[in-house]
Amino acid sequence: MTPTPINLSQKLSQFADQWSPKIIASYENCHFKLAKLQGDFVWHSHPESDEAFFVLRGRLRIDFREGAVTLEEGEMLVVPKGVEHKPFAETECHVLLLDRAGVVNTGDASENDLTESDCDWI
Amino acid sequence: MTPTPINLSQKLSQFADQWSPKIIASYENCHFKLAKLQGDFVWHSHPESDEAFFVLRGRLRIDFREGAVTLEEGEMLVVPKGVEHKPFAETECHVLLLDRAGVVNTGDASENDLTESDCDWI
Repeated sequence: MTPTPINLSQKLSQFADQWSPKIIASYENCHFKLAKLQGDFVWHSHPESDEAFFVLRGRLRIDFREGAVTLEEGEMLVVPKGVEHKPFAETECHVLLLDRAGVVNTGDASENDLTESDCDWI
Repeated sequence: MTPTPINLSQKLSQFADQWSPKIIASYENCHFKLAKLQGDFVWHSHPESDEAFFVLRGRLRIDFREGAVTLEEGEMLVVPKGVEHKPFAETECHVLLLDRAGVVNTGDASENDLTESDCDWI
């Protein structure tokens, strides 16, 4: 079967909810996901999985215990497994994420209103 | 240590050679790589590794044995392990790739002029 191209803008137009990643592709034992982020997330880490962020639109600040970094459009960053981080976006930001399949967005933090333990495919 | 943002445009400005992927980040046992592609590549597959293509600039056609697909800017596709494919770009195209670390660009094809068995980091 011929693989199907995935148009990220078209996929992004299919949802509006923030902090709720949607799966768009499988890669090995991982998932590429799209998310719309705005405001403050919670401190957490993913003990078993690296997490890649690629900013498609807007600006994303990621706080680490040793300092914050800001990702502009067209910038990416890999958060190594086990490293505590807290994303923040002043205005809505669109990101492409790569996580191990089944990873929960709030990682090792206590379950809270932002927790999405079962991402939808779009 | 705080992870460093990676600016893809800035990284792309650091090299000009085509069909010679450069590593920009580690993710689990994989590498994110940037490449500039133009013309015809060779038929090959990667028996042990999925391969993701994300088009940053230009247009990339990927031929499969059952048909071709064309990726425009902002589109991505995952070629599952073992699936034969042949990239082609009429004019220079810039892509973000994700491969298992150590994967050779020409995969299972006989070593040829395009083979890069040891990608550089930039």
